[in-house]
Amino acid sequence: MADSAPVQNPPPEQPAPAEGAEAPKGPSKNELKKRAKEEEKARKAAEKAARQAELEAQKAAAEVDYAKDFYGKLPLNQSQTRERRERVQIASLNPNMDGQTVLLRARVQTSRAQGSKMVFLNLRQRTDSVQALLTVAPEKVSKQMAKWAASLQIESIVLAEGVVKKAPEFIKSATVGDVELHLTKLYLISGLDTVLPFTVDDANRPEPPETEAEDVQFKRVLLDTRLNNRVVDLRTQTNQAVFKLQHAIGHLFREFLDSKGFTEIHSPKLQGAATESGASVFQVSYFKGKAFLAQSPQLAKQMAIAADFERVYEIGPVFRAEDSNTHRHMTEFIGLDLEMAIEEHYHEVMELLDGLFLHMFRSLKEKYSKEIETVRKQFPAEEFKWRDGPEGTLKLSFKEAVDLLVEDGVPREDLDDIDTVNEKRLGRIVRAKYDTDYFIIDKFPLALRPFYTMPDPEDPTVSNSYDFFMRGEEILSGAQRIHDAKLLAEQMRGKGIDPASMSYYLEAFKLGCPPHGGGGIGLERVLMLFLKLNNIRRASLFPRDPKRLEP
Amino acid sequence: MADSAPVQNPPPEQPAPAEGAEAPKGPSKNELKKRAKEEEKARKAAEKAARQAELEAQKAAAEVDYAKDFYGKLPLNQSQTRERRERVQIASLNPNMDGQTVLLRARVQTSRAQGSKMVFLNLRQRTDSVQALLTVAPEKVSKQMAKWAASLQIESIVLAEGVVKKAPEFIKSATVGDVELHLTKLYLISGLDTVLPFTVDDANRPEPPETEAEDVQFKRVLLDTRLNNRVVDLRTQTNQAVFKLQHAIGHLFREFLDSKGFTEIHSPKLQGAATESGASVFQVSYFKGKAFLAQSPQLAKQMAIAADFERVYEIGPVFRAEDSNTHRHMTEFIGLDLEMAIEEHYHEVMELLDGLFLHMFRSLKEKYSKEIETVRKQFPAEEFKWRDGPEGTLKLSFKEAVDLLVEDGVPREDLDDIDTVNEKRLGRIVRAKYDTDYFIIDKFPLALRPFYTMPDPEDPTVSNSYDFFMRGEEILSGAQRIHDAKLLAEQMRGKGIDPASMSYYLEAFKLGCPPHGGGGIGLERVLMLFLKLNNIRRASLFPRDPKRLEP
Repeated sequence: MADSAPVQNPPPEQPAPAEGAEAPKGPSKNELKKRAKEEEKARKAAEKAARQAELEAQKAAAEVDYAKDFYGKLPLNQSQTRERRERVQIASLNPNMDGQTVLLRARVQTSRAQGSKMVFLNLRQRTDSVQALLTVAPEKVSKQMAKWAASLQIESIVLAEGVVKKAPEFIKSATVGDVELHLTKLYLISGLDTVLPFTVDDANRPEPPETEAEDVQFKRVLLDTRLNNRVVDLRTQTNQAVFKLQHAIGHLFREFLDSKGFTEIHSPKLQGAATESGASVFQVSYFKGKAFLAQSPQLAKQMAIAADFERVYEIGPVFRAEDSNTHRHMTEFIGLDLEMAIEEHYHEVMELLDGLFLHMFRSLKEKYSKEIETVRKQFPAEEFKWRDGPEGTLKLSFKEAVDLLVEDGVPREDLDDIDTVNEKRLGRIVRAKYDTDYFIIDKFPLALRPFYTMPDPEDPTVSNSYDFFMRGEEILSGAQRIHDAKLLAEQMRGKGIDPASMSYYLEAFKLGCPPHGGGGIGLERVLMLFLKLNNIRRASLFPRDPKRLEP
Repeated sequence: MADSAPVQNPPPEQPAPAEGAEAPKGPSKNELKKRAKEEEKARKAAEKAARQAELEAQKAAAEVDYAKDFYGKLPLNQSQTRERRERVQIASLNPNMDGQTVLLRARVQTSRAQGSKMVFLNLRQRTDSVQALLTVAPEKVSKQMAKWAASLQIESIVLAEGVVKKAPEFIKSATVGDVELHLTKLYLISGLDTVLPFTVDDANRPEPPETEAEDVQFKRVLLDTRLNNRVVDLRTQTNQAVFKLQHAIGHLFREFLDSKGFTEIHSPKLQGAATESGASVFQVSYFKGKAFLAQSPQLAKQMAIAADFERVYEIGPVFRAEDSNTHRHMTEFIGLDLEMAIEEHYHEVMELLDGLFLHMFRSLKEKYSKEIETVRKQFPAEEFKWRDGPEGTLKLSFKEAVDLLVEDGVPREDLDDIDTVNEKRLGRIVRAKYDTDYFIIDKFPLALRPFYTMPDPEDPTVSNSYDFFMRGEEILSGAQRIHDAKLLAEQMRGKGIDPASMSYYLEAFKLGCPPHGGGGIGLERVLMLFLKLNNIRRASLFPRDPKRLEP
């Protein structure tokens, strides 16, 4: 550019006169004079600026960048070398490390230049962030280095070396606010090759408080944008915490059941026949024939009991071809399923499940309070409440639950079943009366339950079945099962199912099977309701619904 | 029967004279006399027996069954009552309990009457069994009770009460052989309503030693019979142990990775596009459109890395629409997958995976020796060997592996790839030379690997990828991945994949992604090879292959 003539601004274009408007007069002599003067002034200023730029360029060319090895883009990492130099976690930084030089890989969350000699970067690793500072200094940090650092696109991944310093005052914009990092080296590991759909900072802002109509247009659009760009959305501190908590729930589920003598099983998702309820099953092309995706591991886990496994659990995908576009339905979700032999009474199962939930709630509160706090900043919610005293978990019979709703004003004739609206209402009644977000309803009417549900020994209209609730939404459904092949076949016929269509299942009970019961839990529902995320898609890594198969 | 006339034996039928044979003469007078005498004798004996039977029946009718409350079929357990009486595990029985009365639920494995006053039962719970003895005794065990006990069909489930007694000598037919149970009560919980396809005893017998042609007709039929009746087959002590070990492998996988800071993820199995390799993907009817079943969590786990999850694992089903009917292929199996960010070099991943396998091998040997022993009784095999000393796991480059095969006589021109036959051969060479069943091959030719594999930084024909082997079969495949969107798109095009068809995946890398690598392990393969079960179907609860979708 030093050789080229300074570019002059072209004279401003005259707007064409609007049709039918008064024809403008020509400019006055004074005006022409004034314009010529201004043009001359602009030309001189441009010439001066050009000379200045030329000089600076010459100066810069003369000035050796003493920091040129301390910054810049690294070659594509193809595992060229292995120095085995330790890299630290931001979460581990603390004032006791004052003066130590550390190396770390992080995202650039924000970048802000202060003049030409100082750049502030917010560096992020998952849920943790720290402020980093780059200051021009002789032999160490050059102006070129500062300029380069200031130009880094946010969400770039950098390798940063710096000295840990006690922060002069607590830095609110970082999660590790009592130290800052004085950068000595800064390299780009991976940059961006696209425009960010939104910033992680924006995606991490608190949600507006929940309204009753939670699927209003504004929020739906926002959530869709997030889900369309899930890779960026998942980087928020909130989502990093949500999925640490998802992992925790699975871990606690297994931990509790392992301690109770359960065996983990993996049952096939490809099925030869459409079972349970044919209406909502996905069909698969299977070589020259067809198969169906399992709607639950129900049949397999019961067969495992007939095969003497005694106590089994499974964590795996569950497929539902229901065209439901609500805040709590997905076409694929993770089922936490269990089944166990009964010695005397199905309440053995119900109580074990209750113990399982209490173990999860207690451990989440004890061990994951940091993550829960992080989520709450974006999704403000009252803390999840359960009865942890000697009185134990609240257990209502279906009849008692109906009575509570009738007392509250719901017409009894509407309550053959309790629909989702009345479930929520019941949740509020129970919260007000018993101060708990978690309770059990036992003894559902037999007619409401699947064919394999064991009837009550005395009242044939009632069954040995239960649902568990969190914040007024069902999160577990379970029961004692019929383990007698004759009664089972009878019940199938009663519900219009041809026993011959489920012969392998029926055969398992003809071969002798202990009394047993179990339940199925929706992992994402538990996560959503514990954290009050208000939409189940937020509790799924890459959610699937009737309208979404990507990303 | 007491009222009916004694049935006389019909006279023995005369054989028809053979054609052309000499016509027989009539019987002599002496003979006739002798016959009449014999007939008279038989008649008298029969009359006597009938009188005797009548007397006994009268006696029995008169005789009150003093034990009638101590045995019989229980009503269908619908949770009528809850006594909360403790039931014990057979495995817990021991000579120190001599004289204690215990209650337990078990299967009748065998039943054998000795005269009319004593019945021996072998009672089984999963991998454990004990001998139980029922002896007629006044006021306690009646003859009727003994007769009923002797009539119990094997595989019936009983509730047994008895007194623990030190065994006079070790009972070889039971796993708990130092005690026996003297029964005082015996009830039927669940009987059989069908004919057993085979006994559990038969199904538990040692397999014939493995031959090179392991899919010979005899064994295939046997396995098919087992799989068609999997519920009974799974009851064998071998299978109970196999699936405890399957649980153990999953548990150890998670335990190790949890300790290394990994997060468990659940990625969707329903995909919007047929990815990776379109040829072997199952298609699903999805409302008015279509979807595809994920062939691996490859894309999702890499996207999780781009979303800052750093280290992730997943245990879940993997679907392959390959029409392969071999001992090691299934259309659905469980993938143990992991992916992690790399700091400097992809060997960080390879070494972590090696550490994972060593953790699994060591823990299986230490904590599950009983189960391994149980399986070995049916599937005799040399103990699985690995190098556990300071020299570490054997790591060969692909080139070194080829050299070993060439040295052994394989023509080099056959070794552009190492096929399954040569893999097995290599396994034998390595076992002989290095005394290990477990080793790693590193640096595969780039052309043999998927498009997302990172090329070697110096030799573009080679890649940063590795396979792990057990007993000469591949059990893990992994690599450093390309995290640069431009190079990735280029490699896609090179393999004939349109980058636009995987836009969500590609986009993840445009948004900045750390260098990363990982691998996928087949759960059933590890189980099969560690135990030398010789067919992968034995390592799957309800296996699926091109010809099998049930049970």
